[in-house]
Amino acid sequence: MSGVTKSMPMAYKNLGRNGLRVSQLGLGTWVTFGGQISDDIAEELITIAYENGINLFDTAEVYAAGKAEITLGKILKKKNWKRSTYIVSTKLYWGGKAETEKGLSRKHIIEGLKSSLERLQLDYVDIVFANKPDSSAPMEEIVRAFTQVINNNLCFYWGTSRWSPMEIMEAYSIARQFNLIPPICEQTEYHLFQREKVEIFLPDIFKKIGIGTMTWSPLACGLLTGKYDDGVPLHSRAALKGYGWLKDKVLNEEGRKQQDKLRELSILATKFDCTLAQLAIAWCLRNENVHCVLLGASSVEQLYENINSLHVVSKLTPSVMTDIDRILGNKPNFRISTKNETFQQQQQIQR
Amino acid sequence: MSGVTKSMPMAYKNLGRNGLRVSQLGLGTWVTFGGQISDDIAEELITIAYENGINLFDTAEVYAAGKAEITLGKILKKKNWKRSTYIVSTKLYWGGKAETEKGLSRKHIIEGLKSSLERLQLDYVDIVFANKPDSSAPMEEIVRAFTQVINNNLCFYWGTSRWSPMEIMEAYSIARQFNLIPPICEQTEYHLFQREKVEIFLPDIFKKIGIGTMTWSPLACGLLTGKYDDGVPLHSRAALKGYGWLKDKVLNEEGRKQQDKLRELSILATKFDCTLAQLAIAWCLRNENVHCVLLGASSVEQLYENINSLHVVSKLTPSVMTDIDRILGNKPNFRISTKNETFQQQQQIQR
Amino acid sequence: MSGVTKSMPMAYKNLGRNGLRVSQLGLGTWVTFGGQISDDIAEELITIAYENGINLFDTAEVYAAGKAEITLGKILKKKNWKRSTYIVSTKLYWGGKAETEKGLSRKHIIEGLKSSLERLQLDYVDIVFANKPDSSAPMEEIVRAFTQVINNNLCFYWGTSRWSPMEIMEAYSIARQFNLIPPICEQTEYHLFQREKVEIFLPDIFKKIGIGTMTWSPLACGLLTGKYDDGVPLHSRAALKGYGWLKDKVLNEEGRKQQDKLRELSILATKFDCTLAQLAIAWCLRNENVHCVLLGASSVEQLYENINSLHVVSKLTPSVMTDIDRILGNKPNFRISTKNETFQQQQQIQR
Amino acid sequence: MSGVTKSMPMAYKNLGRNGLRVSQLGLGTWVTFGGQISDDIAEELITIAYENGINLFDTAEVYAAGKAEITLGKILKKKNWKRSTYIVSTKLYWGGKAETEKGLSRKHIIEGLKSSLERLQLDYVDIVFANKPDSSAPMEEIVRAFTQVINNNLCFYWGTSRWSPMEIMEAYSIARQFNLIPPICEQTEYHLFQREKVEIFLPDIFKKIGIGTMTWSPLACGLLTGKYDDGVPLHSRAALKGYGWLKDKVLNEEGRKQQDKLRELSILATKFDCTLAQLAIAWCLRNENVHCVLLGASSVEQLYENINSLHVVSKLTPSVMTDIDRILGNKPNFRISTKNETFQQQQQIQR
Repeated sequence: MSGVTKSMPMAYKNLGRNGLRVSQLGLGTWVTFGGQISDDIAEELITIAYENGINLFDTAEVYAAGKAEITLGKILKKKNWKRSTYIVSTKLYWGGKAETEKGLSRKHIIEGLKSSLERLQLDYVDIVFANKPDSSAPMEEIVRAFTQVINNNLCFYWGTSRWSPMEIMEAYSIARQFNLIPPICEQTEYHLFQREKVEIFLPDIFKKIGIGTMTWSPLACGLLTGKYDDGVPLHSRAALKGYGWLKDKVLNEEGRKQQDKLRELSILATKFDCTLAQLAIAWCLRNENVHCVLLGASSVEQLYENINSLHVVSKLTPSVMTDIDRILGNKPNFRISTKNETFQQQQQIQR
Repeated sequence: MSGVTKSMPMAYKNLGRNGLRVSQLGLGTWVTFGGQISDDIAEELITIAYENGINLFDTAEVYAAGKAEITLGKILKKKNWKRSTYIVSTKLYWGGKAETEKGLSRKHIIEGLKSSLERLQLDYVDIVFANKPDSSAPMEEIVRAFTQVINNNLCFYWGTSRWSPMEIMEAYSIARQFNLIPPICEQTEYHLFQREKVEIFLPDIFKKIGIGTMTWSPLACGLLTGKYDDGVPLHSRAALKGYGWLKDKVLNEEGRKQQDKLRELSILATKFDCTLAQLAIAWCLRNENVHCVLLGASSVEQLYENINSLHVVSKLTPSVMTDIDRILGNKPNFRISTKNETFQQQQQIQR
Repeated sequence: MSGVTKSMPMAYKNLGRNGLRVSQLGLGTWVTFGGQISDDIAEELITIAYENGINLFDTAEVYAAGKAEITLGKILKKKNWKRSTYIVSTKLYWGGKAETEKGLSRKHIIEGLKSSLERLQLDYVDIVFANKPDSSAPMEEIVRAFTQVINNNLCFYWGTSRWSPMEIMEAYSIARQFNLIPPICEQTEYHLFQREKVEIFLPDIFKKIGIGTMTWSPLACGLLTGKYDDGVPLHSRAALKGYGWLKDKVLNEEGRKQQDKLRELSILATKFDCTLAQLAIAWCLRNENVHCVLLGASSVEQLYENINSLHVVSKLTPSVMTDIDRILGNKPNFRISTKNETFQQQQQIQR
Repeated sequence: MSGVTKSMPMAYKNLGRNGLRVSQLGLGTWVTFGGQISDDIAEELITIAYENGINLFDTAEVYAAGKAEITLGKILKKKNWKRSTYIVSTKLYWGGKAETEKGLSRKHIIEGLKSSLERLQLDYVDIVFANKPDSSAPMEEIVRAFTQVINNNLCFYWGTSRWSPMEIMEAYSIARQFNLIPPICEQTEYHLFQREKVEIFLPDIFKKIGIGTMTWSPLACGLLTGKYDDGVPLHSRAALKGYGWLKDKVLNEEGRKQQDKLRELSILATKFDCTLAQLAIAWCLRNENVHCVLLGASSVEQLYENINSLHVVSKLTPSVMTDIDRILGNKPNFRISTKNETFQQQQQIQR
């Protein structure tokens, strides 16, 4: 479990129907970089990740109020790896306290990305994400601004994060209408207890416009590690200041039910000689519609544990996946309105 | 309750941001025309509707396997009202048993609409709806075909029925990309127990592209009339052949809970001197995002009762609407992901 | 003054920067046809007009509730002139009492024009006008519908009536954006006491997009004939039922002032050996930005009088036009904001 | 009245349907910066404005022949506030005495903006305005040039100033036709005695294309401060060299009538415990169609007085606004042509 063997089966995928090839696992910096962990540990994490084939490092202007980007930038500068061998993505929306430093105005997209690049000490990032939709900015302005930063060589691609399929389709529509560059990827939450968007909606829109799927929180902010089995431990994320919502989520009725299911899954994990966390990550990787799973490790041990999930993937046969679905009881249906269609079809049969 | 006063306050709205002006209430022919009711009653219903200001009659090629259209067409021919004073809409998807008579191929859209017009004895309908999405046909073919039937004067507008916001946006996107005619309206289910699409998703897409909202099943196939209070009566819709799904819906646990809520709403209805059905219809009309509510009456008495809902609308003050929301306990939230935004905003405050 | 000489100097102009060539004078049917005058007189008027070189007859679906079109149609059928030798224009907006028979929806544009053609007993009109703007219908729908009736050979051109320059420009914009057919002409009120739109705004938009100008009410509904000099005579238009607004206009303070100016102009007319009405019409014709002036005669004598205005035009030299401007005191300025520009220019000079 | 309380209720609005968020009040530099006031006072004004939530500073190349920009630039450099926290706008049209330094040619738009940026010591402004329309330059050249300076990162947005709705619509049309960037805002005069454009025309075009409204001269160059109550004082703006037009405006008949109305409004102001100037500014802010009101203070006291108008806004209830309209007697009507529509509708009723 500690250390990674040479034969780490890291795979690479095109990020949707786009040219960029990403490792199945990426390393996120949310909560950890510039905040929860020291810069030394951060450096160790980046190094281990890179050496084990992870080629994507994800951050955001808002993470630790810019310090995540500063930390990541310092490490990348120090390591001095060839820039073309790795991918950096950042996200824009909350860039400061001023009214003009928030949202997806052209002003903030351009100024925000320039500030991010300064903190990262980079000439460009590979992907810049809109960290959430901004319904107060017209989609034309948003897509034009992202196209402009690409044309200005400040990034290669742009993506969306926590956008609805309708919003993604609107961005695509505007891009087609005005000959601009469409987004290539949606970054979204995905784990055992949050499945609908990644399993139903994104494959649908992928089929239509080739948008890639990058997921975060494979362990649901630690919920899926089993660490909250007996409540909220002192040094866990749910005990951090500002994470009251996470604590509530663990302790409410729904949370209790989830802990029961996790206990069942733990038995399965034991059978596969892996941890619950590894099972949860491997389960994400097993979904062929997911192009990159972002890890959020806060220690070297955790990162090794997470990366080793790659060895578990092959054990998740179709029949095992069915077992997991049975335990979870939350496999999303393709269409809620199915009953009506059935009725219509029945009517037709009556002819 | 029987008969309609001269002062019927029928209002007319543009169907979304489009030129067509529809009455708040429309008359549907689902289940009833060519099926459950005689042609004489159908004629009475159409006449009462027209004389009370309803200007929209909705049907579909699949209703009673074409017989609904035939009945509606006969009545309109007999009444000989000026064609420009009313609106006829039909829907295409299931046009026959042959493989080529289903779905939204150009072949079926054109052939299907022509067959509908023959059954209706009309030169054109006003709106033709895609009765459901067809993921096996490319959106370009679908939008091109609907544009073609408009250009061929077989209809004035096209709309969607039971499409997701993403699919509607895709149709719009294709229309913009290839200079075709976008859809003007989504027809969808809406009643006290099914709210999310009409209250959350369609207003969002209306804001973006002006799509209108036409709703059906304001009484949830009779569920909201209170008639299933003690189970499934012999002559109710849920007892019809092919409606087993409706019977199940009434009798399952969820159905039982809904009956409890309906008992509470009945008390409110009594206070307003109206029936539960009238309260349920007025509640739909009260939603300013709904442009037309389709009624599905199967008797003269029912239709009068339903139309008289117009007198109830003004009683549904904001405070009454809040009471109803409390009883129903199903008011949809704008965004499920709110917790994440809150978290991000908290992070920013930490700066 | 009675009868028209062979040498009637009727000129023909392109209707804006468009191919259609119209006579300087056109014959309108407002108030008169199907209403104020008998069909026999109407026929005489049309015949005199046609024989004196007028090639444009203008009507509208709303005039006398359709009867103006019926009368015009009967006469044209009876006269059996070659269809290609004259131009018929009609206007759509108020087609009936039903909600769906008003405005500029695609439904009403198509149905309304078909009804007009039936009443006119014509296969097509030359120009169909939107009788006023319809802010509740999207401009895209309006321009698409007018393009469709042109493509369906129901008319050759479309125009606007009483639209603002901004609305005309919006229609043009939509036509360019979606490769549709832009309007060719604005029809608007123009006479001695209403000048701004025709003298300032329309030349400006003509310069940009070539839109033609067709004007009506050269005599301000009779105000400029001098007949209201001593109040409202019994058989004048201002005494007709439904024209109370015109009566008010004559008798109010502003009306009194206008009568004073008309007395001064009458002296000028006497000098030119013409009537006040002829002076007023010639003054319209003298404006080179006007492509067609619609006459609204209700008797043979009036029509001869009006047509003979053509002989007065050459007498309106620049110096006479200046005199008239002085009498009227209402020559519109190009820009109200001129003072500000002057200021800015002064500022610049200070450098 | 002196000093601003902590609870200054500065609000922020999107500038029309665009992403940029501006404070309700902006600070203009017309007449004052580089001219009427010293650089020290200018610095105080900018500082007070920024510290009280004003995030927009407006200038123009022509103001004090470039010195306004130089002064503003020096102050912004000295203060060293984060560039992303504020918005700078400038305006182009009169850039120098040479023929090629005026108007809206591509040459002047690009050269003029670069000169402005040099004077401002900035890499970019946020918005560049066309200071007036240029009918001698083709609209295509104008819109292409503004799109180019945006793509060259010399500004984020472009707007218009003192353009007619038709001209704005033409710019929009050209942008759509050639896939260029449309203007986001019209800057125009608005105060108690000049209302039509902001209250009638701009809301109409906002509805169509989302253009924002930024207004100047809320005090009509000081007219509305009551300072001209007894003629033109020695040190007022109307006594400045080059402002003879303003002096005339104060002393003519119309000016006298306005002074009467201002006396009535002063009584209202006293009732609200504010000055006439504050009432006049609050009245502008109260118009929801106005997105930003530019102040033009020439002293610290004036600026505090003006900013404190924010406290007056809530006192302007609908009934107070009605009172003000009654006093002013100049509430603009939606459409002058209403009488015609009424007539037409009457005609229809006659059917």
